[in-house]
Amino acid sequence: MRKVDLNADMGESWGAWKMGHDAEMFEVITSANVACGFHGGDPLVMHETLRLAREKGVGVGAHPGYLDLWGFGRRRFEGDDPIEIEKLLIYQVGALQGMAKAVGVPVTHFKAHGALANLTAVDADMADATARAVLATDPDMIFVALPGTEQERAAARAGLRIAREAYADRAYAADGTLAPRKTPGAVLDDPETAARRAVRMATEGRVATIDGREIALEFDTICVHGDNLHAVEMARAVRGALTEAGVAIRPMAETAEQGAG
Amino acid sequence: MRKVDLNADMGESWGAWKMGHDAEMFEVITSANVACGFHGGDPLVMHETLRLAREKGVGVGAHPGYLDLWGFGRRRFEGDDPIEIEKLLIYQVGALQGMAKAVGVPVTHFKAHGALANLTAVDADMADATARAVLATDPDMIFVALPGTEQERAAARAGLRIAREAYADRAYAADGTLAPRKTPGAVLDDPETAARRAVRMATEGRVATIDGREIALEFDTICVHGDNLHAVEMARAVRGALTEAGVAIRPMAETAEQGAG
Amino acid sequence: MRKVDLNADMGESWGAWKMGHDAEMFEVITSANVACGFHGGDPLVMHETLRLAREKGVGVGAHPGYLDLWGFGRRRFEGDDPIEIEKLLIYQVGALQGMAKAVGVPVTHFKAHGALANLTAVDADMADATARAVLATDPDMIFVALPGTEQERAAARAGLRIAREAYADRAYAADGTLAPRKTPGAVLDDPETAARRAVRMATEGRVATIDGREIALEFDTICVHGDNLHAVEMARAVRGALTEAGVAIRPMAETAEQGAG
Amino acid sequence: MRKVDLNADMGESWGAWKMGHDAEMFEVITSANVACGFHGGDPLVMHETLRLAREKGVGVGAHPGYLDLWGFGRRRFEGDDPIEIEKLLIYQVGALQGMAKAVGVPVTHFKAHGALANLTAVDADMADATARAVLATDPDMIFVALPGTEQERAAARAGLRIAREAYADRAYAADGTLAPRKTPGAVLDDPETAARRAVRMATEGRVATIDGREIALEFDTICVHGDNLHAVEMARAVRGALTEAGVAIRPMAETAEQGAG
Repeated sequence: MRKVDLNADMGESWGAWKMGHDAEMFEVITSANVACGFHGGDPLVMHETLRLAREKGVGVGAHPGYLDLWGFGRRRFEGDDPIEIEKLLIYQVGALQGMAKAVGVPVTHFKAHGALANLTAVDADMADATARAVLATDPDMIFVALPGTEQERAAARAGLRIAREAYADRAYAADGTLAPRKTPGAVLDDPETAARRAVRMATEGRVATIDGREIALEFDTICVHGDNLHAVEMARAVRGALTEAGVAIRPMAETAEQGAG
Repeated sequence: MRKVDLNADMGESWGAWKMGHDAEMFEVITSANVACGFHGGDPLVMHETLRLAREKGVGVGAHPGYLDLWGFGRRRFEGDDPIEIEKLLIYQVGALQGMAKAVGVPVTHFKAHGALANLTAVDADMADATARAVLATDPDMIFVALPGTEQERAAARAGLRIAREAYADRAYAADGTLAPRKTPGAVLDDPETAARRAVRMATEGRVATIDGREIALEFDTICVHGDNLHAVEMARAVRGALTEAGVAIRPMAETAEQGAG
Repeated sequence: MRKVDLNADMGESWGAWKMGHDAEMFEVITSANVACGFHGGDPLVMHETLRLAREKGVGVGAHPGYLDLWGFGRRRFEGDDPIEIEKLLIYQVGALQGMAKAVGVPVTHFKAHGALANLTAVDADMADATARAVLATDPDMIFVALPGTEQERAAARAGLRIAREAYADRAYAADGTLAPRKTPGAVLDDPETAARRAVRMATEGRVATIDGREIALEFDTICVHGDNLHAVEMARAVRGALTEAGVAIRPMAETAEQGAG
Repeated sequence: MRKVDLNADMGESWGAWKMGHDAEMFEVITSANVACGFHGGDPLVMHETLRLAREKGVGVGAHPGYLDLWGFGRRRFEGDDPIEIEKLLIYQVGALQGMAKAVGVPVTHFKAHGALANLTAVDADMADATARAVLATDPDMIFVALPGTEQERAAARAGLRIAREAYADRAYAADGTLAPRKTPGAVLDDPETAARRAVRMATEGRVATIDGREIALEFDTICVHGDNLHAVEMARAVRGALTEAGVAIRPMAETAEQGAG
């Protein structure tokens, strides 16, 4: 039986400011990428997010980013030093591990946030820095990577277990990478369309490309965003359609083994 | 042979701002209380501080504080919630543990910073919150406590190993607590006077009080501050005099066993 | 014709985090208390808030708070120094004045935020510090004050023009102060009830107290909160009922003159 | 009589962290570039810096930077938007103007900090954004610009008064720009050498280039750094040598008129 994980960024509120619809998303997803305090998420938010993950049986991953609260970790800094970035990541992962230990839930995966995710997809040195941060904090963590990117190559070099990530609401280029967001048609708005696409990806291993062709796509987890109510609706549609198609929705710890097999 | 630990707050620089004289102090102390990012210390500073501690064979402790960078953790907030403080502490200790694991040095003690230290000395609920944070992150950590305060009682209730802390440059009240800083004569400025006092404390277990009497004082570690060059001089004087008097200067992990014995 | 101002806190989003329903509230209110960056509001948010105020003809006030972003300015610090608070306020008011000048809209009132508002109601020294900050930045600004509090007395001592503030959704104590939020019945949830109360306050100058009596109440502005959709509904109900009762809804600059008369 | 201004960055301490040697530098310089809170400088530091400037008769300028405290404003963000930067600058200049009004000292010049200074030297759009921020807050402020850069061109386009800036301790390229810091010989360490160079620049209007030639150089102000004790020594040497050579050391408000003439 085909197994697929659904992951989403969670716990990105901070102080008095709320973000996302975590309560609703926790009913849909099987893996939560938990913000670690630098781009969002504070210790109180982290604790509550971990408590909910434990209660709902949702897998927990570290979702660290740049030290850039105002920019929500979405801005890249020129002259980034991979050695420094590695230390920022170790701090954040350690903080989440400490909190998760207190809550009684394991941290089982790692997914870079925002500008750092974009950067590690194309920059081998920076991707290696993230892989080193995982090795230093917990080499058993699953490394979430976009297939065909430097993320995947760095994780492979480091000998890390990999969860290959796909998007149901994003168009693909012919080479299997995501079409840039600004390209017309790159982001799908309709939940039903995304759901059908997810089913085809999961059951046939194929996805249509933005230029009208079709490619093979292997993956272990589908990213469903969580920052607006529409996202909740889309995530529900994807989950519903996958389940109806006989695909099991399981945490990354179970689906990533397929990928490694 | 009498053994005494010398501890100091370290790694309180942040970003472009330097604080203290860590390089000099690492030559004098045997235990470093390492700032964890909320009142001072950033991931780069923490990494360098831990690296130096490992290189110098100095014991490492977590030194977390309020989430109050501008106030350097020295301001108390009205309406503090011990449950929330506990989470702030777990986050910080976890972050330090993650970094220490990456550097390859164990985190062996815990000492609250600033306003939190002052508060936990007198507030049992808040002291219990700090003890719970230690239990949640690593129950083997030594809890640094001022003798006779709520800190010591909370650590005892939690079954934690305790390092009783003394000050060579602070005057004592008749009940064994520190005389408030604002009291005339409460802070000793002269390194030689502090050094003589440290020797008497360590070898005879006695200290003069601010009202001219003398009391017994048991302790495992002496706090030597690190925030100005004068402090380095005083720390050197204390260490020199203790060594000359036949007192062994050893990390807290060795001296706290005396306390427990 | 009786004139009443409706004021609300606006522009409290920060970075990627949204707060409140400013677009809806700008259709209802006549005076906006604009966050100045320390508890909420960043330069981009401030600019957009001022632009909307200009477009809607809504009066602009400075709404500064403690330097405490994480606590949203709601926490009091022990040992506050009025001299220091004064400087924090001058900085924030100056920043807003600069931005308002760039947008082309005057800053005409001042209202303290959060813990600082609570504190200045009861602490004469701190209330005087806020009055000095107004004198230093623009002595023509209207000082929003709860009647009968230290806020009002400090503004009077400083010779500032005062807008006395009332609440339509809060119960009053017999002495004309607000009943503490935690008192049962202290906060009214029903928009229609609040609207009726506002009308009675505006047309008869009387309000029921929480202990079942009735007192006279003079005021120039009614505070309508803006942090949830229910608040928008309540603000609309209050405005609608006042208008229907023949009360003119006018900016504070016009209503505060009544108060002074 | 030739008049030259000496400017330095001041007020870059923040919270508990001290930076620079402001007290010493205030005895040497005639214009202070005052940090405005985003990269350094908090309201208390700003107030004290302005108070010292007034006491010493030193001219005051706004020295705003990126909203990047941890990076001290030295990091550039990819994808900067000039429209957003303009708002960040207006906020900071407004805050300083408010504080300066309270202290009773005028803000007479503007100098961008750190990465923003580097960027505006080469990026016309960003340089225009800084010029617009000056126009919006006070078009009478003098715009400090490196000659031959986009800074100078943007200020000219905006019709702003310009103070052309020179460095006594930096080597020049043949085109009159500063040789990059990493070039061997680009930074002069010896106070006497820098002082001689300053005298030649001021009295003959010429400076040696890094490739052994010599060029003409017009300027109104010399930047003397303030972040270490060596810098104080160098600033004193420059001032002493200029004075001895008959050059008057005067605030920018007097020297920039030469430049315009």
